[in-house]
Amino acid sequence: MSNKTALVISAHSADFVWRCGGAIALHAEKGYDVTVVCLSYGERGESAKLWKEEGATLEKVKTARRKEAEGAAKALDVHNIEFFDLGDYPLEMDREAKFRLVDVIRKVQPAFMLSHSFDDPYNTDHPYATKMALECRMVAQAWGHNPGEKVLGAPQLYLFEPHQTEQCGWKPDTILDITPVWEKKKAAIECMEGQQHLWKYYTNVAENRANQFRRNSGGQAGGREAKYAEAFQSVFPRTVDEL
Amino acid sequence: MSNKTALVISAHSADFVWRCGGAIALHAEKGYDVTVVCLSYGERGESAKLWKEEGATLEKVKTARRKEAEGAAKALDVHNIEFFDLGDYPLEMDREAKFRLVDVIRKVQPAFMLSHSFDDPYNTDHPYATKMALECRMVAQAWGHNPGEKVLGAPQLYLFEPHQTEQCGWKPDTILDITPVWEKKKAAIECMEGQQHLWKYYTNVAENRANQFRRNSGGQAGGREAKYAEAFQSVFPRTVDEL
Amino acid sequence: MSNKTALVISAHSADFVWRCGGAIALHAEKGYDVTVVCLSYGERGESAKLWKEEGATLEKVKTARRKEAEGAAKALDVHNIEFFDLGDYPLEMDREAKFRLVDVIRKVQPAFMLSHSFDDPYNTDHPYATKMALECRMVAQAWGHNPGEKVLGAPQLYLFEPHQTEQCGWKPDTILDITPVWEKKKAAIECMEGQQHLWKYYTNVAENRANQFRRNSGGQAGGREAKYAEAFQSVFPRTVDEL
Amino acid sequence: MSNKTALVISAHSADFVWRCGGAIALHAEKGYDVTVVCLSYGERGESAKLWKEEGATLEKVKTARRKEAEGAAKALDVHNIEFFDLGDYPLEMDREAKFRLVDVIRKVQPAFMLSHSFDDPYNTDHPYATKMALECRMVAQAWGHNPGEKVLGAPQLYLFEPHQTEQCGWKPDTILDITPVWEKKKAAIECMEGQQHLWKYYTNVAENRANQFRRNSGGQAGGREAKYAEAFQSVFPRTVDEL
Amino acid sequence: MSNKTALVISAHSADFVWRCGGAIALHAEKGYDVTVVCLSYGERGESAKLWKEEGATLEKVKTARRKEAEGAAKALDVHNIEFFDLGDYPLEMDREAKFRLVDVIRKVQPAFMLSHSFDDPYNTDHPYATKMALECRMVAQAWGHNPGEKVLGAPQLYLFEPHQTEQCGWKPDTILDITPVWEKKKAAIECMEGQQHLWKYYTNVAENRANQFRRNSGGQAGGREAKYAEAFQSVFPRTVDEL
Amino acid sequence: MSNKTALVISAHSADFVWRCGGAIALHAEKGYDVTVVCLSYGERGESAKLWKEEGATLEKVKTARRKEAEGAAKALDVHNIEFFDLGDYPLEMDREAKFRLVDVIRKVQPAFMLSHSFDDPYNTDHPYATKMALECRMVAQAWGHNPGEKVLGAPQLYLFEPHQTEQCGWKPDTILDITPVWEKKKAAIECMEGQQHLWKYYTNVAENRANQFRRNSGGQAGGREAKYAEAFQSVFPRTVDEL
Repeated sequence: MSNKTALVISAHSADFVWRCGGAIALHAEKGYDVTVVCLSYGERGESAKLWKEEGATLEKVKTARRKEAEGAAKALDVHNIEFFDLGDYPLEMDREAKFRLVDVIRKVQPAFMLSHSFDDPYNTDHPYATKMALECRMVAQAWGHNPGEKVLGAPQLYLFEPHQTEQCGWKPDTILDITPVWEKKKAAIECMEGQQHLWKYYTNVAENRANQFRRNSGGQAGGREAKYAEAFQSVFPRTVDEL
Repeated sequence: MSNKTALVISAHSADFVWRCGGAIALHAEKGYDVTVVCLSYGERGESAKLWKEEGATLEKVKTARRKEAEGAAKALDVHNIEFFDLGDYPLEMDREAKFRLVDVIRKVQPAFMLSHSFDDPYNTDHPYATKMALECRMVAQAWGHNPGEKVLGAPQLYLFEPHQTEQCGWKPDTILDITPVWEKKKAAIECMEGQQHLWKYYTNVAENRANQFRRNSGGQAGGREAKYAEAFQSVFPRTVDEL
Repeated sequence: MSNKTALVISAHSADFVWRCGGAIALHAEKGYDVTVVCLSYGERGESAKLWKEEGATLEKVKTARRKEAEGAAKALDVHNIEFFDLGDYPLEMDREAKFRLVDVIRKVQPAFMLSHSFDDPYNTDHPYATKMALECRMVAQAWGHNPGEKVLGAPQLYLFEPHQTEQCGWKPDTILDITPVWEKKKAAIECMEGQQHLWKYYTNVAENRANQFRRNSGGQAGGREAKYAEAFQSVFPRTVDEL
Repeated sequence: MSNKTALVISAHSADFVWRCGGAIALHAEKGYDVTVVCLSYGERGESAKLWKEEGATLEKVKTARRKEAEGAAKALDVHNIEFFDLGDYPLEMDREAKFRLVDVIRKVQPAFMLSHSFDDPYNTDHPYATKMALECRMVAQAWGHNPGEKVLGAPQLYLFEPHQTEQCGWKPDTILDITPVWEKKKAAIECMEGQQHLWKYYTNVAENRANQFRRNSGGQAGGREAKYAEAFQSVFPRTVDEL
Repeated sequence: MSNKTALVISAHSADFVWRCGGAIALHAEKGYDVTVVCLSYGERGESAKLWKEEGATLEKVKTARRKEAEGAAKALDVHNIEFFDLGDYPLEMDREAKFRLVDVIRKVQPAFMLSHSFDDPYNTDHPYATKMALECRMVAQAWGHNPGEKVLGAPQLYLFEPHQTEQCGWKPDTILDITPVWEKKKAAIECMEGQQHLWKYYTNVAENRANQFRRNSGGQAGGREAKYAEAFQSVFPRTVDEL
Repeated sequence: MSNKTALVISAHSADFVWRCGGAIALHAEKGYDVTVVCLSYGERGESAKLWKEEGATLEKVKTARRKEAEGAAKALDVHNIEFFDLGDYPLEMDREAKFRLVDVIRKVQPAFMLSHSFDDPYNTDHPYATKMALECRMVAQAWGHNPGEKVLGAPQLYLFEPHQTEQCGWKPDTILDITPVWEKKKAAIECMEGQQHLWKYYTNVAENRANQFRRNSGGQAGGREAKYAEAFQSVFPRTVDEL
């Protein structure tokens, strides 16, 4: 029997590391095949340090970004990483690009998907990626799209943490204990040499989300001693057999 | 080892039936001891039919309402039902009543709690009950309240379905399949002789929530064939080990 | 056959003038008996000019405010104005005061009610009055409250315009043309000698709401030539036979 | 003198049936000429049952969907139904398609328009159709668009009911009694042979909205005995002469 | 040393006058170089009066609108006004148009930017312009866009006042006293001969915002005696050294 | 001439340290006299560690909490700290307690006030304190409250950071650089021996808010090199002379 699967849709090639690297590594340990789609390399907008280097060109920056992302993917035990190379700032997807993403979704048949917050006034590529994730999830469910292919069920879409959560209207409803895989996430973060100013930031985030994990799992009367956590907002209601 | 437990806080004595009767019966089948607190009988505001009877008095109405609620509780395998008899329309709780509710919360030590929506312009007793549920949950967590007693952990508070969901700003994030216990819920509903105009309404609700259960658990590509469901809104984030 | 009726619940004795004086006069012209309840005189918080007078006392201020309100009520053809004299800044209503308001509601049996916005960070008496209006509306509907009295139906509650609309989260959905009664509203406004700084403000509001009336009734392709208007937010859905 | 008119903008060819079939039939009975625009047939995304048939092709599915929609339109006494055949999942409109819709709006000069909710995470075609409805309404009002044509006034845009209302942030403010035309709506629903799983769902919705109609038109103290109803959210404020 | 700068992004050629003419003139007096970009002339949608003239053509209308806008810009001491002439109703920007706007942003290096509200159901060009402002601000910050150019810092984006504020979900957090430059704004307004129906409206707005200025700067206990004001909503948090 | 002043209203005796200790110390350095009101000691609900000590009593806990708070106040150069000792979990204020707070507000005549977020499902004392802050601010502005006293102007109310920001609906609009006084805040934090589990948490918060300060003051193109910051949400619009 085949493994369970998950799919991450990342606007730029580093987003999946900061925002859900722990979720990726944790589910890989649980036997999931996790696929990451990087819609762009973030080569124009999220590579300031690389552009400050002598002789930087678009191709060099993209190559460097790809190398960093591949290193991080390896550290996180990503099953497959795909680079769509659609360009960034702004990211734009035409019908062909959308259907390419639909193809991946159908191929992976994810148990759940991960993407960005619904809003982000600092970075319009992020909510655009989520808009595409929802639209392509819908197309993947359509019996009339490439008839004969296996259509998609109804996977949850989790929105991972944006940089300034409150400015993005993002409200997490799920906190995941990533303590067992923290060293992997740390290693992945440290692949992102072009964005060292974010290493400490996202370590702090992980520690503070763990504090919230403890508080919400029992607090001082039995809360689990999580040390690192990630938080997510669900788009769809859960269907359950027990509350 | 003792059973798992759950606690329902119901503003009036019939609310628990329409809004979470399925959840009660289902968890009772799973071995939970479910306690229901009825803060009032709904004797003034939710007993129109009884008041239209010849010779109705406040005591007669309360007695009739209590009898109905006890019948329903029995049908749902409620472990314990407590009537606080605080009066309704408006429901008001002083410090003593609050601490009485804290006592129940601490005694039950629920794995999860259930109460009303945060808002309801038609019925201000409902959001008031939830306000009290949150406030008393907080007091039950306080180490300085009746020191020496076992303090409360951090149980989820689920908000059950109000009558006109959209007018109450209620958005469910959890849909529970109650097909296995539908006959019990139906029996409990039929104990509410004073409110027959609601029987069909909440049967329709259960059928339509089941349609949504199917849609969100896979849709036409594998959705579970639920026939009756209930929906809930969570107040606090979940703490999980797997998405 | 008796007249149609309406009921205004005003936190302070001048609010009904600025915020719905036009609605009052217009419906009076249409044959409605309009009752106004002033929960307080606004004697502490909304009478700065009167307090600056030599020898001001609480009683003198209340008397002056009552006189102004009665003058305005007359100008607007108010059927009945009642002063509850509950005190302001802060306004507080105990069970007795609530039931006094319930008595008025039942006596009037209004086709619709008018009160303040749901929120107002500048003036907490205003949303408090609306909270009371909703709670007392609910009690007035209860068959078990003073059994034998005629219970209330389901009148609309319109929220009239607060001073800084956007800060109060108030969003109007109904714009009423008050051009035919503007002179009456103007006369009522000019009874409020203690608050001359507001005369121009609310004249501007009336003119600009009329501009919006024109825009929403057809704009440059047939919009009605209203010159003065008032705007309201509905709390409950309308029940209609035609869209 | 010509009839009053209304315009429905439906993303897929069945939406108008479930969501406002009653409103259509009711206004037709009142003498309105109701035009329906189906932007697509829903051939890819909303025709699962048809695609499961042996030998299904895009053209066959579209033909079947058109036939169903025409049958429903007839049952509802639709004055005119137009199929734009723009494709679905995703629905996309270029400038030409927009202006085609503007042409219809201007030709119809509707007293009111009907379209989808502003949001729908399950179905991005639905909010897209509403976005187009608003944009094209604006263009239809422009004196510089096809100068000389009769420009549009300011018709209300009602948003009809989405499948999972709370997930779509849809809040109805208008409930329409469709009891007199229920048999027509039922007949139209039964034209939708490809979506039998929705028949019961929308019958339940109609019954429960009628319960809400009763509750909001007087409740147990005089509420109208509606048996079937539809609910709508208004986009624009109403301009009125009486509250 | 060069002057401080500001940039206004106006969907149509008159918007900057009504909505931030005072801010422009005031900052010009303070030594700012204020640039205005008019994305379109509003020639199709906001020139009803001009279209009613005998012999109107698109070019004539555009010429008239440009002349009005240039007159207003002069009255307000605008440093530079650029007309992108992208067309209106609907306004649409392709990648080339976006990059043209990025060029202006980078050239101006504004200390702050001004554009429309996030939402406007009456006028979809307005929120579209703001969407573009945010997207182009982001591109202007990208080190990989036209490498070697001076990248943009993080200027505030202020949203100026839409016509019906509450319908647009716009909530001002900043009120600017424009009393010293009111005569300039008045002169600019009077350049807009095609929209005389708005002169009084925006004069009323300025007076009432001034009343709010007084109220929020101390009220009857020391509020500044502002006579005219404009209000704005900030998109980004302020970074400060003192509260 | 007297100093400028500020007022912090803290539900429990430690809240002012975590949430605005930097703002206090910074403004003290700038010459403000900062007054802190602790409505309670947090003796019941926020002193778990102290209650776990042998022989703990309410008085002992309150004494210990007071000592900690006084130490922190000293470290932050608080001008005056007042303990209202109203009890916590739940905090409740009657008319007398409200007027006591009004007295302090009038005595201090703060240039700005600081209190909790509007909402907090974990801790209902927090939003209750803010509700009281708004209500008492209003009373302090009333000319009829203790006539002859100096009435309050219109100070800003800043809401400081709650523990789980997104769950509390808190959105900061102001980020304050507290780098110059970080050592003082650190010293104050370390006075809170009963809550060591929060030291690291709020250090992380301060570091990450500083990252956001940098990002919002220019980012990689000139953002200020802040190392520690605090964030605040404003309740009222600012009145300004320059954007």
